[in-house]
Formats: sequence, structure tokens, C-alpha cells
Amino acid sequence: MNQEYPSMLLEKAVNEFSRLPGIGRKTAMRLVLHLLRQEIGVVEAFGHAMITLKHEVKYCKVCHNISDTEVCRICANPQRDGSTICVVENIRDVMAVEGTQQFRGLYHVLGGVISPMDGVGPGDLQIESLVDRVNRGGINEIILALSSTMEGDTTNFYIYRKLGETNVKLTVIARGISIGDELEYTDEVTLGRSIVNRIPFK
Amino acid sequence: MNQEYPSMLLEKAVNEFSRLPGIGRKTAMRLVLHLLRQEIGVVEAFGHAMITLKHEVKYCKVCHNISDTEVCRICANPQRDGSTICVVENIRDVMAVEGTQQFRGLYHVLGGVISPMDGVGPGDLQIESLVDRVNRGGINEIILALSSTMEGDTTNFYIYRKLGETNVKLTVIARGISIGDELEYTDEVTLGRSIVNRIPFK
Repeated sequence: MNQEYPSMLLEKAVNEFSRLPGIGRKTAMRLVLHLLRQEIGVVEAFGHAMITLKHEVKYCKVCHNISDTEVCRICANPQRDGSTICVVENIRDVMAVEGTQQFRGLYHVLGGVISPMDGVGPGDLQIESLVDRVNRGGINEIILALSSTMEGDTTNFYIYRKLGETNVKLTVIARGISIGDELEYTDEVTLGRSIVNRIPFK
Repeated sequence: MNQEYPSMLLEKAVNEFSRLPGIGRKTAMRLVLHLLRQEIGVVEAFGHAMITLKHEVKYCKVCHNISDTEVCRICANPQRDGSTICVVENIRDVMAVEGTQQFRGLYHVLGGVISPMDGVGPGDLQIESLVDRVNRGGINEIILALSSTMEGDTTNFYIYRKLGETNVKLTVIARGISIGDELEYTDEVTLGRSIVNRIPFK
């Protein structure tokens, strides 16, 4: 498209938006014109929120999650159970687990999974600091909540080996058919696993 | 969702994004984390592009399109044909017509269509200034490119009445079945119109 924009500033704003993943030029134009109809304060709040976040973002020195301070709000919350740690790949997974409201322990963000294909080795991930956390004591259970892929399984196994000498309880989140799914349409591997890992009916 | 965000700044940025139309909280989080992975310069360019646009946006005094200057880039372009004016509802429609690369004239942005239901009367639209443009001379043709709705038709008719005394040529964009459409699935009104308004086969 060789469209002539009536305004350079408009073109620039549309270009910036259309660089975002999943946002095409038409959506970008719609978003920019939406913001343009808002009060100046709203537009400034929008622009500055992202700039401020980028300038001031820190990573929690305990769990490596995004944080405003040295220690993140979740780690610093005295209401949470510090003896249980859920190991996840990234911050989106933290938010996913938080969204369930079923977990009141702390997290440990690895920053990825071991993937030789992508050049990610154990040294690129926050695995050593997880071992350090366990060695400092006070932790009863580590819940592994990584993706159910070859890379996730490899990482789980690596962590299992690293923590083998400590006497912390190591668990992995349940895999099986989704709530509401029909057996008929479930893939064989998932259905097979959910049969092997069946639990007592209460 | 009563998710606990690890960072207030992150939460604020996600909130700002999720206020945009069609952007939910998950998409907002994905966009924010994408920007967070970019260089600081990219994030600042993104934030400031929108703020600068909002601060410095003007409306072209000729066609009422968005502009950086008193007269927009399209109106100021000497390569364009100033004797033909395409009348559209809003700037998205300007971009849509520009996208076709079939029009090299100028535009006139009404800012909406006459809609008594929404309390929009002729006085709320840039119709008087269109009449003024015609009266200043040099214009041969006005192309009406409004939506094919009752409101669009009403506005077309109002403009037709207003320009009735001038001897400018008034045309309306063709309505008919879309390129690639099958007759069988076209609605009756559109198909009927495209039969009534048939053109010589060349």
C-alpha cells in the first residue's frame, strides 16, 4: 500500500502501533484515532505508562519476576506461603497461575526452558538461583509448572537432578483432559497420560 | 479476575493498553511484554509518537482532514487534481479511498453524516465549508462517497440540494455487487441496484 497520509505525525503513530505483534495497519489506525478522540491526559497516561515501566522495571532478586522494587510484591506479601514454590517459564505463566486463584505460594521464573535448538542452555536460565533458594532452607515443595513439551520435560528433568540431593518435595502439575472436553476428541497421548495418572475418586 | 500483579508499573501499563477498543487483558499483557523486550529508544518512540500527535494535531482548514500544518499534505500536493473533490465521512474513509490508488483529487471530510437519531444535524458537519469551496470556483466535480445507509443517503440529498444552484458536476460512487461475489449470495437490494445502474460493456 502506497497510501498518502494527510499527516506525518499520524503516519508515525500508526507505524509505531503496527509494529506491535498482531496489530495490522488498519487496527493501528483505529487505535490511534481512538486515542486521538480522548482527552490529552488519557493519551499522556497511555504513553508515559509504557515509558515509565521500561525505565523503572526491575527483576525481583528472589523469584526473577518483573518488579518495581528489589523484591516483588508477591515475594514481599506476608500472606503468601513461602514454603511452596511454583517454577514457571515466564511472567505470563505467573499471571496464568495467579488467575486460577488456586495457588498462594511463591514463584520462581526461569526465563525460558532448556532448548538446544534455540541455543538456550541451563546456564541461561535461573536454575542455579532456584537451587540456592532451596539450599537456604524453609522450602517444602517445588511445583514444576513448565510447558508440556520436550523442552519443558528436559528442563523438569534437569531441575529434578539438581535438586535430587535436597529433601524438598518435587511435584509437577497434572496433565490430562481439559474440563469440559469430550474423550472422543482428546488426543491419544493426553488421554493415555490421564489414564495412567488417574487419581482416587472422592 | 483478581490477579495479583508483581509490579504496579506493569499493572498500570496493562490497564492502559486494555482500555483500547478490542484489546483485552491478555492481549494487553502480551503487547506490554513485547514492548518491554525492545530497546528503550523503541519504547520511547512508541510512547512519544502518540503524545506528540495528540499535542500537535491540527485539522486542515481546506478539507478538515487531520494535518500537521494549516493545510494538509494532500491539499498542499501540487500533483493532485484540485478540480475534483471526494466527500467522505471521516479520515478512515480518506485512507480507504487512498488505498485504492484510483483517486488523485482532493477530499472533503464532513466529520459524520446527518443522523437525527444521534443528534447530528447539517450544522454539525462541514457542509457549509464544502459549499464555500465550490463557490470559490475551480471545482468541476464533487464525488459523494458516503456510507450506503439511510443517513448517508440523507446527507447526499442535503448536499445535492445545497449545491443545486451551482453548476458543479455531482456524482456518487457506484454501488453494486463486490468483485468476486456470486450473484446467488448477493442481497436483493444490492443486486437490484446493480441491474438498474448497469453500464455499457466495453
